[in-house]
Formats: sequence, structure tokens, C-alpha cells
Amino acid sequence: MSESKSAVLEQLRELLGDSGVRETPDDFLPDIILKPSSTEEVSEILKICSAAGQAIVPIGGKSGLASGHHQTDSELGLSLERMNAIEEIDTANRTMTVQAGCILQLAHEAAEEHDLLLPLDLGARGSATVGGNVATNAGGNMVIRYGMVRDMVLGLEVVLADGTVVSSMNKMLKNNTGYDLKQWFIGAEGTLGIITRVVFRLRPQPRSQNTALLAVDDFASVRRLLHWLDGHTAGTLSAFEVMWPEFYDHITREGGNHTPPLPRGSAHYVLVETLGSNPAADADSFENVLAEAMEQGMVSDAVLTRSQSERNALWEIRDDVLDFFVLGPFIPFDISVTVDRMEGFIGDIRRGAEAANFDICVIFGHLGDCNLHVLLGNRDAASFDPEAVEAFLYDTVERYQGSVSAEHGVGLAKRAQLPRSRSPEELRLMMGLKKMLDPDNILNPNKIFTVDQIAAS
Amino acid sequence: MSESKSAVLEQLRELLGDSGVRETPDDFLPDIILKPSSTEEVSEILKICSAAGQAIVPIGGKSGLASGHHQTDSELGLSLERMNAIEEIDTANRTMTVQAGCILQLAHEAAEEHDLLLPLDLGARGSATVGGNVATNAGGNMVIRYGMVRDMVLGLEVVLADGTVVSSMNKMLKNNTGYDLKQWFIGAEGTLGIITRVVFRLRPQPRSQNTALLAVDDFASVRRLLHWLDGHTAGTLSAFEVMWPEFYDHITREGGNHTPPLPRGSAHYVLVETLGSNPAADADSFENVLAEAMEQGMVSDAVLTRSQSERNALWEIRDDVLDFFVLGPFIPFDISVTVDRMEGFIGDIRRGAEAANFDICVIFGHLGDCNLHVLLGNRDAASFDPEAVEAFLYDTVERYQGSVSAEHGVGLAKRAQLPRSRSPEELRLMMGLKKMLDPDNILNPNKIFTVDQIAAS
Repeated sequence: MSESKSAVLEQLRELLGDSGVRETPDDFLPDIILKPSSTEEVSEILKICSAAGQAIVPIGGKSGLASGHHQTDSELGLSLERMNAIEEIDTANRTMTVQAGCILQLAHEAAEEHDLLLPLDLGARGSATVGGNVATNAGGNMVIRYGMVRDMVLGLEVVLADGTVVSSMNKMLKNNTGYDLKQWFIGAEGTLGIITRVVFRLRPQPRSQNTALLAVDDFASVRRLLHWLDGHTAGTLSAFEVMWPEFYDHITREGGNHTPPLPRGSAHYVLVETLGSNPAADADSFENVLAEAMEQGMVSDAVLTRSQSERNALWEIRDDVLDFFVLGPFIPFDISVTVDRMEGFIGDIRRGAEAANFDICVIFGHLGDCNLHVLLGNRDAASFDPEAVEAFLYDTVERYQGSVSAEHGVGLAKRAQLPRSRSPEELRLMMGLKKMLDPDNILNPNKIFTVDQIAAS
Repeated sequence: MSESKSAVLEQLRELLGDSGVRETPDDFLPDIILKPSSTEEVSEILKICSAAGQAIVPIGGKSGLASGHHQTDSELGLSLERMNAIEEIDTANRTMTVQAGCILQLAHEAAEEHDLLLPLDLGARGSATVGGNVATNAGGNMVIRYGMVRDMVLGLEVVLADGTVVSSMNKMLKNNTGYDLKQWFIGAEGTLGIITRVVFRLRPQPRSQNTALLAVDDFASVRRLLHWLDGHTAGTLSAFEVMWPEFYDHITREGGNHTPPLPRGSAHYVLVETLGSNPAADADSFENVLAEAMEQGMVSDAVLTRSQSERNALWEIRDDVLDFFVLGPFIPFDISVTVDRMEGFIGDIRRGAEAANFDICVIFGHLGDCNLHVLLGNRDAASFDPEAVEAFLYDTVERYQGSVSAEHGVGLAKRAQLPRSRSPEELRLMMGLKKMLDPDNILNPNKIFTVDQIAAS
């Protein structure tokens, strides 16, 4: 440890006490993690770090897939795990005020106790923190209905690099008093400030849930189906998840963990769900809308769930991405392309993967949000060349004018790819804000941009 | 005209031709209005103005109520009225690409031709431009369902003060590639850049519309009704507009322009509307939900509309704010307070108005969005003291921790009030971004902040 780092650490130990500093050797994360218990302590930490030029890495649930929580040099970690209180559920205004270290699942449960919904749902709900979700503008399974995290944040409290606490804990849906500062920090991956508290907008808890798995023969029908359902379910469509056969056939294989609810061998499987308020009427109308979609030839086969366990079984198929690790090494990509370009994009990915002998090529995603996940790799570990896989995938994304990050952020993992989706003018503006808010690069340095890129901009 | 201004004007005339410059003496607007016909011309204009330190005021439909389009010194006006093309309606991705000068109503109609909805509706739809709507983060009548303009913008093209064109014409719902730049410019009232093109997210056109006017006896029931309806209409609730008796009784007075659909004399009138996809089923369910609300004592009287003309008649009552000008001079305020504080706030406004002899005191608003409009003034013009009226209203807003601008922005009209709703830290950050993006204060100077405030910050 450098002399200056150990001097800083001494000051921080004095501030936080022994229980406020954890040391655990780790290959990826910082070895020393600071655990403040209040916004004031976060502010003091940043004042000390700022004065010493000591960089920090904010760490949430460590479920991010872009390495945004990894260390790049000799940063200290900053975990808000002790700032995990749900401070208020305001049923009159239907808002939740919560500290950033709260686990997403616990926030869900607290809202549910008041018959309210925090409409953010993703696989890592049991470990992800709401602060991490806001910092990465998380997406997930209900974006088509409720939007990204950005759309459900009403207010934020942020600590700036110099320790200034900026409190914008707004609860009002309409508030046009100057620039909407909170937007700067949402999705900035902890590079512009440390999010300490959040006000979320809550929604009424749905009273009905209707879920089905549909087989669809061609992509034109998938597109028609999306618009048909969205147009005939009055805004209650909350999921439109498409699985291509490489996904479905593997997950429901003989001897695997999941029974196939529909026969294998279709070109597309679509998991659809609506969230409504009238159980009897909604079930009827869901069935009618799907029946008509079948009559019109959009859907070739369908299974509707009749119980919560059947529903869970469908979602477990969609969510069981870990089951692909038995195949061999791969990179899980998270990208967007517009719906009109998606068929061409997927065709090019499949053909290109075959030509390059990437024999793991699995595609699924939140089609209503333009968001595809692609698993690309090799069954034979010795043939796996991550750089070749990345170059191929991102070249194709760029050619289709897609986004190299849909919902997972940039972090370290996609930093080099950013210019494929953003222009030099855009990148220059972004780095301008970074320089303004964090002139010494102490907030999650080297994430999104390298320190050198920023210096040169 | 100063020598430097006339030199600049000569260059601009050369660039734009005679048809690109309009001169009309005006008390409030700039006398000289530039009318570029392309983004490139906007860029050239800003390069010329930037080099000469010549300030400009962007001008849209001139329907703003915060004087954001007024001149403060010797600015030139910049109108995008010739950049009004609807460039594309992309039915596959359900987006609209439109130039900023397009009139909102024409954008509505273009979407409707493709069975799609641009879900932004406000009284000035026939004159407001989409660029002005985005620059002011407009709200309106459907925010409870579809959000503010911010929530429907997928992409933007902006010209910076130095003429740089920043194109972020994204069409994808999920795109987490670095900072979400477009958020900086939405609602910034033309002080950070000139918005030239917009990509809007479109929604399916609703197939049913159910509208009712309800009489509600006490405010606790208004609150319960809001949550009851929102919870039982599965996200289809698109309007929850409350009128207090001073509003309703005047608008529906004997000899006035509107027949009262319900008797006068109730404590609150609530206009509610749902937008659905199944005409027969939605009408039934709307009726059932309202019937149950009456049974539960939330609603004391109700009228449901049976035709488009009945529907229009209800909305004309809600929208006829001009009818209050017969009473005498008043200031139309646009503020937010949280729902739990609203009853206390309104009580204080009424009592205070009476004590101060402000005998025009009319309250109505988008309650589901926390947004109230208050008309406050005097029947006797000689007694009208705008400064006293403003001070009283904004003092009360501040005491209730409300927002001095809900949906109309800050402009000149609310600049002095901004510190009532925003902290010094927030204001300092905002001015930091302004200095970074417009160091010479040539973009809509003195709006939101004075040039002197910025210099001192």
C-alpha cells in the first residue's frame, strides 16, 4: 500500500470505526471496502478522498455484468450495505423513500405490504441494491409497461466528489423547476456522484396476472403479434419475451431441468404477460385476444397458465440463463437493435457464428424494448477466443446501428465499444460533464471512459 | 441597433436570404426573427452569433406562460417554423421523427393516420410546436397515464451554442450507452442548446374512451377515489382533473357558455377518463367501477358521457380557462404540492386570499400529477397588486414544500421564485452545466437564471 493510501485509510478508520471498514483480498473488487452508515459519513469519506486524490469504487449487489464495480488501480470500495433502510412508504402520494443499499427484493416486499408495486423486476432481485439499479438505469422484465428505472425515480440524494450533498428528494410527478438534475446521475454508473437515497414512484398492485407461452413460426408474425397484443390489451401488456429455438430447445431438453410446455422445434417462443385489475374479465379478454391472434395466423400454438406454479414454470424457463454454462464458455451480450432491423441482425449473427465456428449461439430477449441477449462462444473451451467473439458481435451491432449496451451499462466491459454507438460529439459532451463534476477522477475512475480519454478530451 | 448587431445581421441575411429573416416590431418578442430551414442553417447561425457574442431567443408557438420566449435585451429571435416536417412515422418501431417546428396538433394527426398515438395533449395543441414542448418538458392532460414529454422522447438532435450539431436520434427503448445526454436538454427551455429534431415513442391508438364527471363531497374522498380508480382500471386511467366550486360554478353559471352537466354546489368536481382497447367491455367496467365508488360513498353524483359531443362538452368545461378573464385581472399559477399536503395548502390559499381581498381565487388541476392551477387576482382592477398576489401564493407553496413550476417551466416569470423549490447546491450544479455548454450566454440568456447569477456562481 502506498504511503498516501495508508494515511487516507487511517483517517477513514477514525471516521468509520473498525466495523465501518472491511478488508477482504479479492482479485476483482477493491480489497478494502468502506461501509458508511449515513449520508453524512459518505460526505466525509468523499471529502477525505477528494483532498488526497484517493479514488473509490461504489459497490452494490455485485450483480452487474459490465464490471462497473471492479477495481482498476488502487481504489477503495464504497458499499452502502449499512444504508439499507426503507425510510418511508407514503401511501397518500404512493412513493417509497429508500436508502441506496436496500436490496431490491426487500423494497418489492415492502411496497407489496401496502398493496403497491415497485415495477422494477430483474433476475438479480435478491442481491441487487436499489442504488445500483438507479446508478445503472436497470431495465428488466416489465420495461415495456413501466419503463426503465429512470422512469420510476422521482427524487434522488447524491453526494458529489467533493463531499457536497445534493438533495433532490422530490415526490411530485410534475416538477419543472430548472434542469432535471437527477437525470444526470441515473445511469451514470457512479462516475458522477454517489447515490445515497431514492424516491420511487409506486403503482397500484395488479389484481390479475395472465401469462402464456406462444409458438410463432416467422419473425414477421412476431412483430405483428407484438403490435396486436399491445393494441388490444390497453396498456396492460407487461412482458413480451422472445426465445429463439437454440434457447428453448436447450432449456427444455430431455433430462434437463424444465418440462417443455410446448413442443420443441418452433422458430420462436414468446412469453407474454398482462397485469390487470379485474381477474375474471382479464382472463377472458386475454384468452380472446390470443384466440384471435391464432385465428389470424400470428400464433401457431399456445399454452395459457392456470396457476401460479404454471406461471412460475414459464418464467423459470425464461430466466434460467445459468443452464447454458453446461455448454461451454461464452460471453453474454446485452444489446439493442430496432425491431425492423432485428431479423436481418439475427440472420447475420447466426450465419457469421457458423462461419466462425462459434457453436454456442443462443438468442433471447425483451423484444418489445428492442433488447436482445446473445450468448456466443464455443463448446470446446480451447477454441474459445473472447476477443474474436466480441469483435464479431459488436461489428454486427454497429453495422445495424444498434446499441452496444441495452440495460447493463458500460462499466469496463463495454468501454472500448462505446464509440460504436455514440458519436465523438456525444462522447465529448459526456466527458465534459465528468470533468465538471469529478475533476480529479476519484469517482469510479476508468469506468465508461478511461482517465486518459478524459484528460485528452 | 448597435454596430456589432447590424454587422451580425448582415452575415445572417446573407446566410438565410430575405425570406429567412422577418422583422416585426414587438413589445415582448425580439423584433428580428431568424427562420432557418435546416439544421445546418441553425448551426451556421449559432457559429456566427457565437463569434459575435450575439444572443438569441428560441421561439416556438409562443403559447408558453413563463415568458421563456420574451426578449430581455437585444436578442435575435430564432424560429424553426420552416423546419416543420414530419420526417418519418416508423410503424415497425412505432416512432415518429419530426422537426422541432412542427405544430403539436399536426404531429397528433399524422400519428393517428397510422393508428398510433402521440400521447401529449394540452390546450395549446393548435399553436405549440413539438420543439417548444420538448424544451419545456410539457405536461398536459394525460400525464397520469403516459408521463411528461420527457417520458416520450427517445432521441434528439441539438445544436450547441458554438454550432456543434449533436445527433442522438435514438429509436430504441433500452439504450444504456453512457450518460443520457438528451435529458440535459429536455426541459432546459432553450438555455443549453437548440432542439432541431425529435424522435418520439408512439403508442397504440386507444379503441375506447370513457369519460365521466363526478361530484365528490370532501377531499379525503377525492384522494380515495384517485387510488380506487387507478387500482381498478389497470393503468388505463388517463385523466383525473379536479375542479373546485369557484371554477365549476363560474364556468357553468346561468347565461354562461356551458350547461352544467351536474348541479352546482358540490365541493369538488372530478373529470375522469380511461382509454382502453375493448369498447363494449371497457364501458361496462368503467360503469361498474364508478357504481362501486358511489356505493362506497366516494362519489355523491355522476354523469357518464354517451357520445363524443357529450365528452367534448365536459372537456370544454375543464379547458375554458379564458372564461375567467371576464372576472377581472388575475395571475394564472402552475404549481405542485404533494397530495397529502394539498387540502391544507388549498385551505391556506382560500383563507389567505380572503384575508388579503384577492376576490378571484379559482383552483383546478391535474390532481393525479400533484399539479394545481390557481387563478388569483381582483375583480376590481384598481385593487390588483400582482406582486402581492405572487408573494402570497409562492410563500404558501414554499411553506408546503411544493414546486413553483409544475409544467410551465421557469422562463422569466418564475426565475425569482426558483430558490423556493431548489437548494443552493442544486442551483449551483445547474449553473455549472449552463456555463459549460453556453459560456458566453448566447442561448436564451436571463431565462431560468440571470446572466449575473451565472457569472457570480
